[in-house]
Amino acid sequence: METEKNFDRLLQLSKQARILEGVSSILDWDQETYMPDGASGIRSEQVKTLAGVIHRIKTGKKFGTALNKLIDVNKGSYLSKSFSEEQKAALREWRRDYLHNTSLPTKFIEDFTKLTSQAIIAWREAKEQDSFQHFAPSLEKIVTMCRRKADLLGYKEHPYDALLDLYEPDMTTKEVSTLFDGLRLALSPLIKKIENHPVDHAFLFGKWDKTKQLAFGKTLLDHMGYSFTNGRLDCSVHPFSSSSHPTDSRITTRIHPTSLMSSIFAVLHEGGHGLYEMGLPVEWYGNPLGNARSLGVHESQSRWWETRIGLSRPFWKYFFPQLQDTFKGPLKNVSFEQFYRGINKVMPSFIRIEADEMTYPMHVILRFELEKGLIEGTLKVKDIPEAWNDTMERYLGITPPSFQQGCLQDIHWSMGGFGYFPTYTLGNIYAAHLFEAFEKDQPQWEKEVEKGELLFIKNWLADKIYRHGSFYSTRDLLEKASKKKLSSKAYLDYLTKKFSQLYPIGH
Amino acid sequence: METEKNFDRLLQLSKQARILEGVSSILDWDQETYMPDGASGIRSEQVKTLAGVIHRIKTGKKFGTALNKLIDVNKGSYLSKSFSEEQKAALREWRRDYLHNTSLPTKFIEDFTKLTSQAIIAWREAKEQDSFQHFAPSLEKIVTMCRRKADLLGYKEHPYDALLDLYEPDMTTKEVSTLFDGLRLALSPLIKKIENHPVDHAFLFGKWDKTKQLAFGKTLLDHMGYSFTNGRLDCSVHPFSSSSHPTDSRITTRIHPTSLMSSIFAVLHEGGHGLYEMGLPVEWYGNPLGNARSLGVHESQSRWWETRIGLSRPFWKYFFPQLQDTFKGPLKNVSFEQFYRGINKVMPSFIRIEADEMTYPMHVILRFELEKGLIEGTLKVKDIPEAWNDTMERYLGITPPSFQQGCLQDIHWSMGGFGYFPTYTLGNIYAAHLFEAFEKDQPQWEKEVEKGELLFIKNWLADKIYRHGSFYSTRDLLEKASKKKLSSKAYLDYLTKKFSQLYPIGH
Repeated sequence: METEKNFDRLLQLSKQARILEGVSSILDWDQETYMPDGASGIRSEQVKTLAGVIHRIKTGKKFGTALNKLIDVNKGSYLSKSFSEEQKAALREWRRDYLHNTSLPTKFIEDFTKLTSQAIIAWREAKEQDSFQHFAPSLEKIVTMCRRKADLLGYKEHPYDALLDLYEPDMTTKEVSTLFDGLRLALSPLIKKIENHPVDHAFLFGKWDKTKQLAFGKTLLDHMGYSFTNGRLDCSVHPFSSSSHPTDSRITTRIHPTSLMSSIFAVLHEGGHGLYEMGLPVEWYGNPLGNARSLGVHESQSRWWETRIGLSRPFWKYFFPQLQDTFKGPLKNVSFEQFYRGINKVMPSFIRIEADEMTYPMHVILRFELEKGLIEGTLKVKDIPEAWNDTMERYLGITPPSFQQGCLQDIHWSMGGFGYFPTYTLGNIYAAHLFEAFEKDQPQWEKEVEKGELLFIKNWLADKIYRHGSFYSTRDLLEKASKKKLSSKAYLDYLTKKFSQLYPIGH
Repeated sequence: METEKNFDRLLQLSKQARILEGVSSILDWDQETYMPDGASGIRSEQVKTLAGVIHRIKTGKKFGTALNKLIDVNKGSYLSKSFSEEQKAALREWRRDYLHNTSLPTKFIEDFTKLTSQAIIAWREAKEQDSFQHFAPSLEKIVTMCRRKADLLGYKEHPYDALLDLYEPDMTTKEVSTLFDGLRLALSPLIKKIENHPVDHAFLFGKWDKTKQLAFGKTLLDHMGYSFTNGRLDCSVHPFSSSSHPTDSRITTRIHPTSLMSSIFAVLHEGGHGLYEMGLPVEWYGNPLGNARSLGVHESQSRWWETRIGLSRPFWKYFFPQLQDTFKGPLKNVSFEQFYRGINKVMPSFIRIEADEMTYPMHVILRFELEKGLIEGTLKVKDIPEAWNDTMERYLGITPPSFQQGCLQDIHWSMGGFGYFPTYTLGNIYAAHLFEAFEKDQPQWEKEVEKGELLFIKNWLADKIYRHGSFYSTRDLLEKASKKKLSSKAYLDYLTKKFSQLYPIGH
C-alpha cells in the first residue's frame, strides 16, 4: 500500500515536470519559427523560470522522500521485492535523473548557465571575426567547469563518462573509443581512395521555389506515415524537431538559398525524429519510460530516414520522377544514375553539417578525441586549433583555411555540451545495426520502397523502437531488435558495400 | 529594511507568476493559430498545470506572509508610513488579487472548472440543435455556482458586484445600471427612427483575396504604430489579441468568407488591444502596476481604433482610395459617400458581434440585465428565452427566430463568465469619454488622419493610458485624462451627432 502510494506520488510529480518540459519545448519551437524578434529577452526569462519550476519539482523533498522509500538511491537496489519489471525500469530511470539533478549544486548550475550564455555570445563574435583567441578564455572556463561537473556527477573509469552519460545513458568513453577506432581505421583508407574522384552534382544547385519545396517535403512525410494531425512542418534557420507529447511532435526544415536537396534531407531527418516522438507509448506519458531512450537512439531514427532510406536507390526510383516533374529546370535532363551519384557524392570537406555519409563520422570522431583530451587534461584549450587541423589532415587529408571552417564551426562547446558529439555517430552505428535486422525481417523492402511504400518501415521501427520508450537500456533495445551484439560492423559493411559500387575502393 | 525585503519578496513572486501567465498566453495563441489538432488534449493539461503552479505562487505561504506584513489584508490599511505612492498602488493591487485568489476554496475552483468544461460542450451541442433545453441544466448549475462565488468573494451592496469586480475592478452594479440606463433610454428612440432606413452596402460583400486582406491589415497596423518587431498578425477562427510581455504582443484576424470589412475591423480592434499591451510600462513588468488596467479600459482601446478612427470619415478619406485600388471589383464604382454610409449602416439585428455602433450597446445592456436578474434571483434560467426575446423586442424591435440567434449565441455563460459582458459597453463609454479630451488636445486630428497620420493618436493614448498600467484606478485614470467626471454623456453625444448626419433622427 505504502509502496504504491509512493510510486503514485513519483508518477504525479514526474508527469507534472514532463508536462512543463513540454511547455518549454513549445516555447523553443515558437522562438525559432514565429516569435517576434523583440521578444527574445522575455523568452529567455520564460524558459529560465520554467526550468526553475521543473528543477524544484524534480529535486524537491516530496520527490526525494518518495524515491528513497522505493530504491536505494546510492546503490541502486530496489527496496521491495514486489515491483513489476515496469516499476523497476521506471525507478532505474528516476534514480538516474535524480542523481544527475541533485549532484550539481544550485550555485554551480547558475554559474554554468551564466558562463555559457556569455560564451555563446563570445563564440558568435569569435566566429564572425575568425579569431580563436576571442573565444579561448570562455572555452577555458567552460572546460574547467565541465571537468568539475564530471567530478560532481561522479564516474568509475573516465571523467568523460560522466558527461557522456547525460546524453547517452550507460555508454562509456572506453566503448565509444572502441566503436570509433574501428570505424576510423577502416574508413580512413577508403576515403583516401575516393578523394577528388570527380562526380558532377551541379544540377542540384539553383533557384528552387519555396512553396514547392515545402509541398514536396509534406508528400515525403505523408508517405513516411508522419501525422499532420499530431505534427507540423515549418521553416526555421536551422532544421529541428520539437515534441511536447506524442500528439504534438513538430518539425522544421530550412530552405537553402541554392541547394535543392538541403530541405529534402532535413525533412527526412527531422521527420525521423518526429516519428519517434509520435510513436512513443502515450500510456507511459509522464512516466520516464514514456521518454525517448537516448540522443543516440534518436539520431539513429533520423539518420535511418535521411541516409538509409533517403539516400537509397529504391527510394529515388519512386521519387526522382516526381522530383523532376516538380522542379523541372536543370533536373529535367539528368538521368537517374547521375542523380543518385550526385546526391551520394563523397568529398572531404571542412564543415561537419555539410559532410557526406562517408566522411561525416570522421568529423565526429575528431571532436570526440579533442573533447576527451580536454576533459582528461591531456589537451590544452590553446592547442585546439593545431590539434584540430592536424587531425583533419590525418583523417580527411585537408586543412581548414580558417577557424570558421575549423574549430569554431560548432556551437556545442560554447553551450557547455561536452559529451554530445559522439551521439551523432552512435546514431549511425545504431541505425546500421538495426537495419541489418530490418533487412532480414523485410527482405523485399527495396521492392516496396520502389513503389513508394514507406509505411511498413515506420511500422517496423514502431514495433522495435518507438513503443518501448525507455523501458530497455539502449544496448538491450538494440540487441533485442537485432539479436546481435552491438558493434560498428554493420555500419562499416554498409558504407563499404554502398560506396564500392560508386567509387573505385574495391570491396 | 524588513519592509523592503518583504516588498522585494512580493515583487519576485509576482514576477514569476506573471512570467508563467505569459507562457500560458503563448500556449493559448499557439492553440488558436498553429497547434496541430490532435494536441488539444495535452494542451489543456499544459494550461491546467501552469494554472496550478501560478495559483500556488499567488496563494502560497511566502506570498501571504510578506503581504500581511505590509498591508492589513482584511481592512486594506497600509502597515508602514514610509511607502511611496507606487508601493501603495502595488500593494492595493496585490491585496485585491490575493483576496480574489484565496477566497475561493480549491475544491470550489476544481468543481467550477469541471462544470464549465462540460457546460461549454453542452452549449455547443445546444446551439447546434437549437435547443435551449439542452443547455438549461448546465446553465442552472453555473448560475448557482456563480451566486455562491459572489458570496465567497464578498460584496457590499449587490452580489453581482463581486463578479463584476473580477473583470472591472471597483465598478459596481449600481454604477453600471446608471450608465446603461441613460444610454438605453436615449438610444432606444433613435434606433426606432432609423429602423429599416435603406442603405446599400452590398458592394462590401464578395470574394476577396486572403493575402491582400492580410497585407492591407498590416499596412493599417504600420500606420497605427503597431510594431512587428514586438508583434505579429496571424489568422484564426475568432480574432483575438494575446500578449506575454510588451515586447511580445500578438494579434490575429479572421478572414471572412464574404465580408471585406470583417478582417479590417478585426485588425483595427485587435490592433488597439495590441498597442495597449505594447505600451504598458516595461519597467513595471511583474509588478501588478505593469498590467493593463481592466477589461473595460482594454476594450476602450480596441473600440477607439475600430470605431472612433476606423469608422470615421477622415480615416477613409486616406484609406478608401487604397482599398479601392487593392481590391477593385465591385468597390471600383463606389463613391466615398456610399462607402462611408455602407460601413456605418445601422440596422437592428440578432447577433451581438455583428451589430453596428448604434445597436451594439443594446445587446450588451440586455445581457447585463439578464445576468443581474439571474444572480440576484429575480430571473430563473427557464425564463431566459422569454426574457431575452421580450427585451430584444423592446430595445430593438425584433424577435429572434431561433435560440441560435437569441439566447444561445454567446459562449460567455457556458464559461461561467458572469460579469464580463458589461465591459464591452463600458469600453465604448470610456473611449468616448477619452475621445472628448483627445479632440480638445488635438483639434486638428481629422486633418492629420486625412493624411494617413495615425501615430500621434497612439502617442496620445500612450501618454494618457498605456504608460500608467494599473497605477491609477480606472476612474482616476479616465478622469485624469479628461479632467471630467465619468459619464455616458460623451458616448451618447458622439452617437447622436454622428448618426444624425446619416439618418433622419434629428439632433
